Amino acid sequence: MSKQKWMIATLAFGLTAGAVVGGSGIQPEAGANAKHNQKQVKNVIFMIPDGYSASYATNYRWYADEEETTLDQHLTGMMRTYSANSKVTDSAAAGTAMATGVKTNNGTISMDPNGKELTSVLEKANQIGKATGLVATSTITHATPAVFASHVASRASEAEIAKQYMDELEVDVLLGGGQNYFTTEQEGGLQKEDLIARAEAAGYTYATNADELETANASKLLGLFAPEAMAPELDREMTEEPSLAEMTTAALTSLNQDKDGFFLMVEGSQIDWAGHAHDAAWAMKDSEAFHDAFQKAIQFAMKDKQTLVVVAGDHDTGGMSVGGYNEYVAKPEVLRSVTATGDFMVDSFDESLTNVRDVVERYTSLTLTEAEVKAIQAAESPKRTLVLNEIISKRAYVGWTTSQHTGVDVPLYAYGPQHDRFTGVLDNTDVPKQIMQALKLK
Amino acid sequence: MSKQKWMIATLAFGLTAGAVVGGSGIQPEAGANAKHNQKQVKNVIFMIPDGYSASYATNYRWYADEEETTLDQHLTGMMRTYSANSKVTDSAAAGTAMATGVKTNNGTISMDPNGKELTSVLEKANQIGKATGLVATSTITHATPAVFASHVASRASEAEIAKQYMDELEVDVLLGGGQNYFTTEQEGGLQKEDLIARAEAAGYTYATNADELETANASKLLGLFAPEAMAPELDREMTEEPSLAEMTTAALTSLNQDKDGFFLMVEGSQIDWAGHAHDAAWAMKDSEAFHDAFQKAIQFAMKDKQTLVVVAGDHDTGGMSVGGYNEYVAKPEVLRSVTATGDFMVDSFDESLTNVRDVVERYTSLTLTEAEVKAIQAAESPKRTLVLNEIISKRAYVGWTTSQHTGVDVPLYAYGPQHDRFTGVLDNTDVPKQIMQALKLK
Repeated sequence: MSKQKWMIATLAFGLTAGAVVGGSGIQPEAGANAKHNQKQVKNVIFMIPDGYSASYATNYRWYADEEETTLDQHLTGMMRTYSANSKVTDSAAAGTAMATGVKTNNGTISMDPNGKELTSVLEKANQIGKATGLVATSTITHATPAVFASHVASRASEAEIAKQYMDELEVDVLLGGGQNYFTTEQEGGLQKEDLIARAEAAGYTYATNADELETANASKLLGLFAPEAMAPELDREMTEEPSLAEMTTAALTSLNQDKDGFFLMVEGSQIDWAGHAHDAAWAMKDSEAFHDAFQKAIQFAMKDKQTLVVVAGDHDTGGMSVGGYNEYVAKPEVLRSVTATGDFMVDSFDESLTNVRDVVERYTSLTLTEAEVKAIQAAESPKRTLVLNEIISKRAYVGWTTSQHTGVDVPLYAYGPQHDRFTGVLDNTDVPKQIMQALKLK
Repeated sequence: MSKQKWMIATLAFGLTAGAVVGGSGIQPEAGANAKHNQKQVKNVIFMIPDGYSASYATNYRWYADEEETTLDQHLTGMMRTYSANSKVTDSAAAGTAMATGVKTNNGTISMDPNGKELTSVLEKANQIGKATGLVATSTITHATPAVFASHVASRASEAEIAKQYMDELEVDVLLGGGQNYFTTEQEGGLQKEDLIARAEAAGYTYATNADELETANASKLLGLFAPEAMAPELDREMTEEPSLAEMTTAALTSLNQDKDGFFLMVEGSQIDWAGHAHDAAWAMKDSEAFHDAFQKAIQFAMKDKQTLVVVAGDHDTGGMSVGGYNEYVAKPEVLRSVTATGDFMVDSFDESLTNVRDVVERYTSLTLTEAEVKAIQAAESPKRTLVLNEIISKRAYVGWTTSQHTGVDVPLYAYGPQHDRFTGVLDNTDVPKQIMQALKLK
């Protein structure tokens, strides 16, 4: 039916405006609205596995060799992802919708399409005295964390985003990559001071590796663990960086010191990057790291009983499928055998590319065919990783339709008091609105 | 975690075995089990849009130009689809799981992997005196309807399936295509009698077109509207066949005459075929026909108040995506402009293929480029349709990863009493088990 007809039908069905518009909304026996206010929500943990759609969830279930993953146990609905100017969103517009409840144009960080600054759920939580935190495996100034505490016309302005974090001091815990945006002069001399020194002067404890993070135990915490993005989970062992689960635990320990409660956003940033690169093993290993972090959040919430945990990817990346290539097959065991990203393997090729087969055998269970080796050798450098990744994807029967995002609805998960706000099909803008209502934010 | 660890965790969380294992199962405030028995379920309408995954749901929402479709309003969870012998199921194994609660091998119709016959929810409903019905736009002897009332080792044995329908007389209403399997001698002389005559002798009213169906008004009804499959919805106007919505209404009118209630299965069969052919417009138009039929089911259930409606695709077909081709774009308006299937357009090409551009302009909004015309002309006959369909898909930004199925979880919808049995992530085998419990079938 047309949108107008839908409005009429909606009214005829007795749906109340502003309420959850999903499945249970019109089911007389659900009584969702009545239930919402029964249990108090003091804390919110909002977790975003960037790029994670139902195909990632299904492929990950096989990769993990589980009948039901921890996320599966908490599925409540699905979420629409489109942006103000495109049926296929980018992470900036998707994040803005999920942080502020307003759709904007692709590329924009918490401003509406006219450039008006939008207030995020994190900022509103800060205004009423709650502690706040942002955790990511990208730079902490990347689009998804940025939308919660900065306002810029272009997601590329990461030094400006860092400066806004430190100008406003709205975020008590910042953990991720991106030292470069806090320490160096960037973007035409805009940033002239050392933001890390400013953070320390403002009472933040600064951590640069997993050990320092573990022992920090402070209510205000700045952890920057890499100059740019942190390492993919597959390659993290060679670094001193904390895992996403370790950052989540550290953030919860810090934030929980505030008697007024907290709002924490945790992003599994690199699932998306793996999808762009068609690196299915990287996507699965970072999905595993995200599940480990989710487990920490759930354990905290189960004990705390006043913590609402909400999880949704911001969009699908890559048009991933479970199976593909005209066969009724999927081989997650191929991905389980992979111990390095495609990028890492390509970096390990010698200059004359004579060791391609050896490198791939070292880091996967695969023996490349002559044709596969030649295809990798023939590819120019930036595209070489994609060629390798697509060979591995094909062997694992993971299909892809694009190197960018797609517009498919994504699964939505929730646990804890008032989790029933997230049932049915929600818009990405509904999610922060429901969180704001649960936290009684204006 | 491993399967064993998951079992332990499940027990530790206090999940009751056999109950809904989805999101709300371990949420203390949901109290789902307590609620299940409050409202009586007299009738069940089980609707299967074959091949319908979240990408079809999202693309269809854009195609229909709605903010929320009728199905969206009733999303309750998602469903795993794998079969006994493959992570990517076919429709026979998927249907067997959804009809009997037991996984089997691809290709098998309601027998387990050892050849043991399995009892379907329809057969159990018939055993306790409920009326039963099967509606499909494929032959009524095709895999998805067949699993509910026949048992054969191979889905290809359609004449044997028709014979079993008439031997057992378990199904009171049969509506779809497939006259050939009820009237002619097939499969090595197995079927020697006219099954339509036998049906009429057993008290069935026989209908062959939309008018006869509308005026039939009988409690036992056999409607066969085409020798093989019925027409795709895009091409149906040129026939006298009823729509899926008309068949659904007729089935409900017939079955509702039984005071003991009924079980009805309605399949949107050709969404899957459109996916196999990468014919995105066919997929959308048959999704529209399915939504129209769902609307009829919901209207009946809203009035009746004792009818449970459950909807799930049996698997994804084609690895469809919303957008694709490395751009942040989707163009549903291209699909809305298409008025014929790719098959129909290719059949309209003249022998020398000089009218390719004219035919495509007649049935779509597209003007083909010289290169596109040449690609269609260069393709051999059975592949020509695929080449045309992929040109249209690319113009509409609908991606595909395979000509077969994929293994992604599919959305699950439910309305009516005890709809809360279908929340969270369910296995395809859980769905008939929950329906059986709702109907108190043993």
